[in-house]
Amino acid sequence: MHGDWSIVESPFRVETARAYEGLFTLGSGYLHVRGSLEEHLCGAPQNLAYTRVPANVTSEKFPRSKVRWGTYVPGVFARHPLLNNEMVNLPFFLLLVPIVDGERLDCERCRIEDYRRELHLNTATLRRSLRWRTARGRALTVTFERFISAVRPHLCVQRMVLRADTPAEVTVEAGIDADVRTNGYDHLASVRLTPAGPDGIHCSVRTDEGDMIEMETRLRTPSAAWCYQARRRTARLAAAFPLRAGSELTVEKRTAVTTSRDLQPAAPAACLESAAGLSFEELHEEHAAAWRRRWEACDVIIEGDPASQLAMRVSLYHLMRAHVPGDPRVAIDAKGYAGEAYWGRYFWDTEMFLLPFFLYTDPERARTLVDFRVQSLPGARRNAARYGYPGARYAWESDDAGNECCPNWQYADHEVHVTADVAYGLLHYARATGDESYLRGAAAEVLVDTARYWMRRIDWREGDGYPSLLGVMGPDEYTPISSNNAYTNRLVALALEAAAEYGASGGASREECAEFARIAHLLPILRTAEGVVLQCEEFGRLAEPRFEELWRDRSQTFAAQVSQERLYRSKCLKQADVIMLMALFPHEFTDEEVRRAWEYYLPYTTHDSSLSAGVHAIVAARLGAVDEAWRFWKMSRDIDLDVAAGGAAEGIHIANAAAAWQVAVFGFAGMRSAMQSDVLSLEPRLPEAWSRLAFPVCWKGQRVYVEVWRDRTGVTNRSHRPLEVIVAGCRRTVGPGTREVWEARS
Amino acid sequence: MHGDWSIVESPFRVETARAYEGLFTLGSGYLHVRGSLEEHLCGAPQNLAYTRVPANVTSEKFPRSKVRWGTYVPGVFARHPLLNNEMVNLPFFLLLVPIVDGERLDCERCRIEDYRRELHLNTATLRRSLRWRTARGRALTVTFERFISAVRPHLCVQRMVLRADTPAEVTVEAGIDADVRTNGYDHLASVRLTPAGPDGIHCSVRTDEGDMIEMETRLRTPSAAWCYQARRRTARLAAAFPLRAGSELTVEKRTAVTTSRDLQPAAPAACLESAAGLSFEELHEEHAAAWRRRWEACDVIIEGDPASQLAMRVSLYHLMRAHVPGDPRVAIDAKGYAGEAYWGRYFWDTEMFLLPFFLYTDPERARTLVDFRVQSLPGARRNAARYGYPGARYAWESDDAGNECCPNWQYADHEVHVTADVAYGLLHYARATGDESYLRGAAAEVLVDTARYWMRRIDWREGDGYPSLLGVMGPDEYTPISSNNAYTNRLVALALEAAAEYGASGGASREECAEFARIAHLLPILRTAEGVVLQCEEFGRLAEPRFEELWRDRSQTFAAQVSQERLYRSKCLKQADVIMLMALFPHEFTDEEVRRAWEYYLPYTTHDSSLSAGVHAIVAARLGAVDEAWRFWKMSRDIDLDVAAGGAAEGIHIANAAAAWQVAVFGFAGMRSAMQSDVLSLEPRLPEAWSRLAFPVCWKGQRVYVEVWRDRTGVTNRSHRPLEVIVAGCRRTVGPGTREVWEARS
Repeated sequence: MHGDWSIVESPFRVETARAYEGLFTLGSGYLHVRGSLEEHLCGAPQNLAYTRVPANVTSEKFPRSKVRWGTYVPGVFARHPLLNNEMVNLPFFLLLVPIVDGERLDCERCRIEDYRRELHLNTATLRRSLRWRTARGRALTVTFERFISAVRPHLCVQRMVLRADTPAEVTVEAGIDADVRTNGYDHLASVRLTPAGPDGIHCSVRTDEGDMIEMETRLRTPSAAWCYQARRRTARLAAAFPLRAGSELTVEKRTAVTTSRDLQPAAPAACLESAAGLSFEELHEEHAAAWRRRWEACDVIIEGDPASQLAMRVSLYHLMRAHVPGDPRVAIDAKGYAGEAYWGRYFWDTEMFLLPFFLYTDPERARTLVDFRVQSLPGARRNAARYGYPGARYAWESDDAGNECCPNWQYADHEVHVTADVAYGLLHYARATGDESYLRGAAAEVLVDTARYWMRRIDWREGDGYPSLLGVMGPDEYTPISSNNAYTNRLVALALEAAAEYGASGGASREECAEFARIAHLLPILRTAEGVVLQCEEFGRLAEPRFEELWRDRSQTFAAQVSQERLYRSKCLKQADVIMLMALFPHEFTDEEVRRAWEYYLPYTTHDSSLSAGVHAIVAARLGAVDEAWRFWKMSRDIDLDVAAGGAAEGIHIANAAAAWQVAVFGFAGMRSAMQSDVLSLEPRLPEAWSRLAFPVCWKGQRVYVEVWRDRTGVTNRSHRPLEVIVAGCRRTVGPGTREVWEARS
Repeated sequence: MHGDWSIVESPFRVETARAYEGLFTLGSGYLHVRGSLEEHLCGAPQNLAYTRVPANVTSEKFPRSKVRWGTYVPGVFARHPLLNNEMVNLPFFLLLVPIVDGERLDCERCRIEDYRRELHLNTATLRRSLRWRTARGRALTVTFERFISAVRPHLCVQRMVLRADTPAEVTVEAGIDADVRTNGYDHLASVRLTPAGPDGIHCSVRTDEGDMIEMETRLRTPSAAWCYQARRRTARLAAAFPLRAGSELTVEKRTAVTTSRDLQPAAPAACLESAAGLSFEELHEEHAAAWRRRWEACDVIIEGDPASQLAMRVSLYHLMRAHVPGDPRVAIDAKGYAGEAYWGRYFWDTEMFLLPFFLYTDPERARTLVDFRVQSLPGARRNAARYGYPGARYAWESDDAGNECCPNWQYADHEVHVTADVAYGLLHYARATGDESYLRGAAAEVLVDTARYWMRRIDWREGDGYPSLLGVMGPDEYTPISSNNAYTNRLVALALEAAAEYGASGGASREECAEFARIAHLLPILRTAEGVVLQCEEFGRLAEPRFEELWRDRSQTFAAQVSQERLYRSKCLKQADVIMLMALFPHEFTDEEVRRAWEYYLPYTTHDSSLSAGVHAIVAARLGAVDEAWRFWKMSRDIDLDVAAGGAAEGIHIANAAAAWQVAVFGFAGMRSAMQSDVLSLEPRLPEAWSRLAFPVCWKGQRVYVEVWRDRTGVTNRSHRPLEVIVAGCRRTVGPGTREVWEARS
């Protein structure tokens, strides 16, 4: 394997504990657990009740807490009284604590040396080792390992190894703590904890929404007499072990989690049983092998820049982890199932950021993401009806059933582009896989129903001669209610064109389809007299943002330093808007148009959103502004890794993680998506620091390997059919199993 | 006295009970109690906890409940966890229940005949009589009376008289119920109920904000043995009385209320003591005499139209009741201390709707309203700082301390005109009273500080040549974020002019004042090419509201039938906006301009706000469109009286009540306010149905009586100085103590 594959925390610092918790999240798709410490920290209660109120998440202040547990099974939603449906934080089952001389291991309070925690990205395994000197002077070496099996997605396997320098009596506690909250709210209507045999705990939980969650933990240690204790919502097994000098104590803890939502219901005990004959090493090997296969299909190799290489892999790791294979009832939430900040909900991130990575590396996984929108169409219909429209209107913040859950009206009501983004995603799936039949199947209803919504959402103003989309919020959320947002209009036009083309399969009449096409054709993209694509009609009439005067501390967002009222009346952009449009439709804008937009909007763009930098990097690369692209790539790259600034404390910025892949592939390799070109097309522009960029791509069913050097580009056709490829405008046919190399023009 | 003076409820209907509760609110300014039934209704618990969440009050659905107690002392605010500071609903002290044959009086469940409840507006006394046939066939006549003394504002006096047709054993219960909630929330941190002598109850309550409320009730009945019972937060005195056929039992209940906020702290017992020597009749007579004096200073006589006459008096009654004399720490809340819907907070209603009535009938009372803004200047400064501005920014929804309490950001952030409305109020006070020194006193600081806020709130856009107020909400709350709202710009210009003129007294430098004046001069009022004053820059580019298609049920608001998103992108107006501007500055717009605005905006105006109809009536009268004025007058008139439609269920629409006075005086009598004319000027245009309209006016310290007949207008100068008066353009001098009559031109 190439290069570095692990992120390291060393030494432990309580200030960054929460950020590492997010960054070190493990998951099998089905089950996710934040990277919390097995032994926890003293003085960090996880059962505090508080009222999280509707607020703008971007500038929200979250309750301070050293660490924050998070155990998630995608799809387990329950109703919060103020915030609507949210993903439930489930009981914490990692508890595994050594106690020596009456002293509990605590990385904050104990004397700890050589602390090193490492997430091995290649095998999705978390390892920690440390030296612990107790107050009484005893020295121990402690190592922890854990993984959530990629092969047995209900199973989490943990191991702790203790070695004492001198003889010691060690007590080990292992347990399940169900006294947890979600955003300060208690969703657990009932909790039942019982012993499961002499060395196990069973935890049975019913959420206030009625979902049942079953957890079973089993300990594996040679000859231990575990003592079961339960108190309120916590159960523990404790046992004492004499430890000879230099000898090791190994405690293994296996936990299986199942829920009443499972596609194949089973008891956790059955899952544990089926693995019972396999050792830790055997379980880990099958798990690691599965991850190796995943990496083969997607790893992006960056040579010459280890920091970017590692960051890229962190992103890809979390993307693969967060995807739930085979279950179209859920997608990937905004925090990648690594935090509860965005309530486990699904945003436009799914289509516009996440989908491409899966489409071009693992189309089968991509399929569940688009199927998610198809299966949640009834929810989108309910949303439309609730707003007084026919058809379907996708939720800005969707739960598993497609219900609009966003508690802030400005986004829920006005950020309607998500409904067109969904259609874009369906089209992108069909074009990238070459499976056009998808659009004539269940997806056709989505196209027709969303088109019917748009047909009633447009307004005709006197004298205009064209229809308008009024009162919308584009991707830039700092202009909350605007008219004819270019991004929105273009996406809606695309959605209407698709509905016109495939609508017959979705129940639309020929006249209706003709009308879809007519409106698609008429929706305007407005420009200034100077030819700048206008974000919206009003943009030029907004106030100057006065950054010099008002944005003093650039380490904080602009939003954190001014009132929302000023954001809403000023030209400041939260994120790419026209630039995002140009990233999606590069072929529809000349370089000159893109450059004008870039020059006009960039000085106004705050990048307060984590969705901004990556898109800017892509468009900068397209303009050949490689230094700018590099700057934005670094900005994007560091969002989750900058633990000092909070990083992934509230969860992974998963859309940004996916943007990393897009920056490399669409940006620096200049690959056109299947929405932009029918032929695989590359226009590489490597950053100075990169000597080689290489990645696999699946193009309309054909597997390809792309390698970009500073002076040449290689494309290997790993399929059995020839493939047309264009590199920097030069078209060639790459034969099956062969590699073609294009020399760069200089 | 002239005409009808009472509103009557007969028979009792549970469907309208809550509306009458609001309409029959009694109050002394200091203390207010909704018109709840003394014996209450079964199955209407008042201690239900629920979570009221931030919502648009206009279209909010309130929890269903047959009745809703409300006991308010203005200024007793406490913090709601989601809704900010709200007026606290205090313990209900009216409880007075007759029980016969084990049957409690209950107007819904018992067999009741000849039920008649009457609010005597002239004496602010609530009387009820009914015939009660018990299940066992006994017949009783019951009468209740109560008033809150205008002379002893801490004292509420109640009397119940029972007469049985046949001998009966009657039990009477009287008590205080402190198990109450405010908007479903419990603000009472402690409640202590104790007997107060053999015939009294003392209730001592501490709010969660720390305010202490003391209540003491004493019963007066010949020879009763009261038995004290307390359970949780309710205390009752009960006694049995034998009642001979045809004889009467009279039970009198007096309750005094004081709080730790009182300007002159006292124990309620002292208040009761001081009245102990006076009989019910004596107390009532001093109370009635005080109300007579009030009515003399303000009664508006409408001859020929009893319905309008009564409605006008209902309005004036509530205005007088709701005003807290001598206490500038509070103003008049949006529901006139008759309901908790608007949390007891102060809006622009104070200056733009309520103030004129007081200014021209009782300038001393008007003074406390403007002083309220002066004393809450520190709160306005805090608001400005919180939004990142210097100076002072008044709250859209103010508590007693001036803090912004509005939980919905669109109003709190954008409906900034209130800050200019406050300046308008100060100027209006000075001009109407002739007391310009007021503006050189403490008010000057308000003018300077609000001007300093405006100077930083304006934006200069490239190429405009004028400053703009961007991102504002005008009076029309259906256009939430707009630019250069005409109303706002004009009011701000006025405020800046005033700051320029009086700013030196408020600490502004000469240069600063010059700059205030310069900006005032430059703030634009925009017009369309056709000369229509533009509500805001964007207005013409909004969507058509499509009322025919979307507003099917005109008995409900438009907002109740469409999504907020549609309101916000459409030309629909919630209420008068440009028309409001023209009502305030009639002299700055030609009839033609007003007519154009009227014709343009009226078809778009929903009047979903209760602040709309009255303003439209005034402007219609100015245009000579008396039929239109009449139509709007009736719309305004019925808002609180239409009990079937809910009426005053959630409290009195007090701004609309004040608009009634303005419609009569500014509209049908065509009086120019002191903001519009230095000379008392009338332009009468009576509606068809009215044969005479007469009212007293206090003009710059001179008391005047105005009488308008269809064919002539009389002005009586009740002062000791001659007075210039203009009627329909004809100026005369009216000598002291004389009446001049102007014949109408026909």
